[in-house]
Amino acid sequence: MASRQREISVSEFFLKNRHLLGFDTPSKAVVTAVKEAVDNALDACEEAGILPDITVEVGERQGKSRIVVEDNGPGIVEGQIARIFGKLLYGSKFHKLRQSRGQQGMGISAAGMYGQLTVAKPLHIISRIEGDELASELYVSIDIARNRPDIHKKRRRQWDRPHGTRVEMEMEGHCHKGPHSVETYLAQTAIANPHVAIIYRPPQGEEIRFGRSTDQLPPRPREVKPHPHGIELGRLIQMLSDTASPTLSRFLVDEFSRVGRKTALEIIGRAGKPLSDRSYPTHIARAQATALHKAIQDTRVRSPRTDCIVPIGEKQLLAGLRKELDADFCTVITRPAAAYRGNPFQVEVGIAFGRAGGHSAAAGATATGRSKEAHGGTGEDRLIAGRDEPVRLLRFANRVPLLYQQSSCAITKAVTQTNWRAYGVHQSKGALPIAPMAILVHVASVWVPYTSESKEAIEPYPEILKEIKLGLQQCARRLAQYLHSEMLLHQEHDRRSYIERYLPHIGIALQEILALSDADRDATVKRLDDVLVRSRTRAGPDHDER
Amino acid sequence: MASRQREISVSEFFLKNRHLLGFDTPSKAVVTAVKEAVDNALDACEEAGILPDITVEVGERQGKSRIVVEDNGPGIVEGQIARIFGKLLYGSKFHKLRQSRGQQGMGISAAGMYGQLTVAKPLHIISRIEGDELASELYVSIDIARNRPDIHKKRRRQWDRPHGTRVEMEMEGHCHKGPHSVETYLAQTAIANPHVAIIYRPPQGEEIRFGRSTDQLPPRPREVKPHPHGIELGRLIQMLSDTASPTLSRFLVDEFSRVGRKTALEIIGRAGKPLSDRSYPTHIARAQATALHKAIQDTRVRSPRTDCIVPIGEKQLLAGLRKELDADFCTVITRPAAAYRGNPFQVEVGIAFGRAGGHSAAAGATATGRSKEAHGGTGEDRLIAGRDEPVRLLRFANRVPLLYQQSSCAITKAVTQTNWRAYGVHQSKGALPIAPMAILVHVASVWVPYTSESKEAIEPYPEILKEIKLGLQQCARRLAQYLHSEMLLHQEHDRRSYIERYLPHIGIALQEILALSDADRDATVKRLDDVLVRSRTRAGPDHDER
Repeated sequence: MASRQREISVSEFFLKNRHLLGFDTPSKAVVTAVKEAVDNALDACEEAGILPDITVEVGERQGKSRIVVEDNGPGIVEGQIARIFGKLLYGSKFHKLRQSRGQQGMGISAAGMYGQLTVAKPLHIISRIEGDELASELYVSIDIARNRPDIHKKRRRQWDRPHGTRVEMEMEGHCHKGPHSVETYLAQTAIANPHVAIIYRPPQGEEIRFGRSTDQLPPRPREVKPHPHGIELGRLIQMLSDTASPTLSRFLVDEFSRVGRKTALEIIGRAGKPLSDRSYPTHIARAQATALHKAIQDTRVRSPRTDCIVPIGEKQLLAGLRKELDADFCTVITRPAAAYRGNPFQVEVGIAFGRAGGHSAAAGATATGRSKEAHGGTGEDRLIAGRDEPVRLLRFANRVPLLYQQSSCAITKAVTQTNWRAYGVHQSKGALPIAPMAILVHVASVWVPYTSESKEAIEPYPEILKEIKLGLQQCARRLAQYLHSEMLLHQEHDRRSYIERYLPHIGIALQEILALSDADRDATVKRLDDVLVRSRTRAGPDHDER
Repeated sequence: MASRQREISVSEFFLKNRHLLGFDTPSKAVVTAVKEAVDNALDACEEAGILPDITVEVGERQGKSRIVVEDNGPGIVEGQIARIFGKLLYGSKFHKLRQSRGQQGMGISAAGMYGQLTVAKPLHIISRIEGDELASELYVSIDIARNRPDIHKKRRRQWDRPHGTRVEMEMEGHCHKGPHSVETYLAQTAIANPHVAIIYRPPQGEEIRFGRSTDQLPPRPREVKPHPHGIELGRLIQMLSDTASPTLSRFLVDEFSRVGRKTALEIIGRAGKPLSDRSYPTHIARAQATALHKAIQDTRVRSPRTDCIVPIGEKQLLAGLRKELDADFCTVITRPAAAYRGNPFQVEVGIAFGRAGGHSAAAGATATGRSKEAHGGTGEDRLIAGRDEPVRLLRFANRVPLLYQQSSCAITKAVTQTNWRAYGVHQSKGALPIAPMAILVHVASVWVPYTSESKEAIEPYPEILKEIKLGLQQCARRLAQYLHSEMLLHQEHDRRSYIERYLPHIGIALQEILALSDADRDATVKRLDDVLVRSRTRAGPDHDER
């Protein structure tokens, strides 16, 4: 067993396991590559306080796709370009506790690696920083065995943009339509990011524009320190040995969020001798660290800061749903922030209910003009499900739409575990509810626990599941009220139409039995109608109050 | 964007994403840790040609678990121990095309890392190589920021085993019962590995022994070269630049499986000028490599070798199912080998059908004594589902039971996409069939494409899905035959009992109508019975042939 053991480079590992990064099929590869590039572009723009203008272009020829994503972001310093695009596990977001779309430092390099594998073409990058006279242009691939960039060509050149980045990639790939397409990804991105403008040039057909509905950038999330209650013993020991703080009390105040001097002293006091506020953090033994860890858990500390996460917001989310979906009823809720493993997160839920095709008479009026489908797609393209279909789920994490792996996602589990029948919606046990409805769930966090590196589904940590369920329940209660009033309206309409249909016949029958004149008959019918209307009007409120 | 970019160590990455490695909840952490250690032990024993004797011990105290796994394997050279247990992405199996349980070089180090994080304890390893006078003992943890081992203590010591390895780990963890337990994992391991003996000492209760049912080790899988048809362009270019072969024809023969000199010359001829059999592999330009790649795809090459994979085998599998499950009907099939992305794989399917509780009269006889549950568990513990429950899936990859992530596994998708109603089994569309049944599927491959590093589910590559479905259909046809004959038996029994019940009454009625004597009545009833039996006996075969 001795001789043949060797190191595995992280690039080799992910090249062999490329399905983990979302590059398992030609059609998924294209969506994943676009997604990684767009996510980076949006992060860069927002971080620099720039309203994002993104152009996405996909060309196709003989089973190969050429993808270009261009942004008006701040650009990248030339010395960093090669490593950002040509090395896995390299980036600026991993070590920060702050909401961002990217977090792993893998996506765009992985797209390049896939292109390199399948068509042996490097990434082509142009980037310019504001104020620089020229842009940098590089061709970069990955040295797989060493996980480091291979620069094929590098030069300075003219570029018409004052600042921004353009990445061009080629790969074996296929751009298709449907619920797992570039178009759907961009349409859903527009819902969750009303401040973004995107132009999409698909391989066939006309350019599609997703305009911005607000000129206001979302507030910039703050970077935070970890909350002391989410720290495991091993991590605490590591932090003690790594810190530059000279004393234990300074360490607690400097390295953690929500710990002031008073709280630090309380923790140290509770941990007991030989620890004191002046202990050297780097000299603390394991037994004392264990006592310190316990003391931290036992001490009251304020809840985690939440300005490190920025939800979409109820107003924006409602506007986004209304704009992109054709629904009769929309409701949204932004839950208060919570935490899992010390990581703050926040859940937003929206429900859009429509009446596919305006089936019932009562709903006829409201359903008028509602049969057009979002973005002109048909069937599976639609964002609201048909009458007899499972609801459509629109899943988002840190404002990024999740298109794949629906069945293993915390959002799906929360929806299927909710009792929708209690809210008047059909559902088989453990399945998605059946209704002409879309459910949107957004999970924002400083660290989204994805079920794989391709970031397609959220791991169902209990705290996250619980928050999503609470949000779903709140929205579902409002939906139930709406459905109930719709049902009353419907019943009222039915009664009215029965009366209108049968009352004349009753009149004729009465005329024969009682030998009434035509005028008497009509007067009787009129009186009967009035009486019935009054009785229904009285019954209405009674029924409502029940 | 410039200053804060930095490298992310692979250990840091997986520590933050530890759910990817199966360490997200305390109960799962224990199962995962046991699994990683046992898988390593079995691989090591088999590779050395030793019949595996494994001891697993789990202790529990105050939310912490102590896990010890000991084997009679060949032991590990002292110089390798620290890296094997204290570094992610290090091992002997990743670079080989050969079936093994481990393939990533991550599992056991990840378990160590989790222990280090949660209780700050290093792994404790004892290992001895046959013939060595003393064993090596090490305490190892991971230097997370650098992904390299940290040796806390190292010494040579006495050990009662002549050869083997013992690893002891402590972690935050909880050992529970049920379908996702250490016990279930070991019971299912016994089904797929009839040559293995395991002793399990749980935190509470008595020791459990899983004995071996054969003394014969499975044949040792051979290491193979990649098949040329599975090679992507980028990989071919990499191989050309890395090879030590002096000429192109030698390169093709040396580096690929199933390519002889004749096939090599055919490929080179098809690729065209300027390539010749004497071209230097390292001097081939991209355009020529592209032509070579196309020529390889266009040339007939024998199917991939399959001695790199070792299925369990129909006989062993059937014996395993019969031994561990209480079923009335068992059938298994080992499919011929196939390949995905050039990787050979082979699928085995087994179906075990039982009659939970012996509900029907006809089945009463066969169901007698069948209500006892495998390993004395109740409800969810049973390996065969109840009458009104979805079937139990027993999923295996390279002889390792897969306990988690059932919904995202290729095996589950193949089962739910099979039309079970056609075989006489209840099923809602797109769901697991409902029957007192267990379905076992084993996928063996030189590289199993898991959906995450925790190796809990198989990515549904189309070629793999297809093979599983074919196997399921073959087994299901046999099941349908069995169910049909059971149904006939049942109907026969029903008819018989009707006749027995009503014939005497008919006799009395006839006696009254025709004024028969008691003797005549009895004789008439007897003749009627004979006639009915004869007619039924004739109707039987007709019915069968329909």
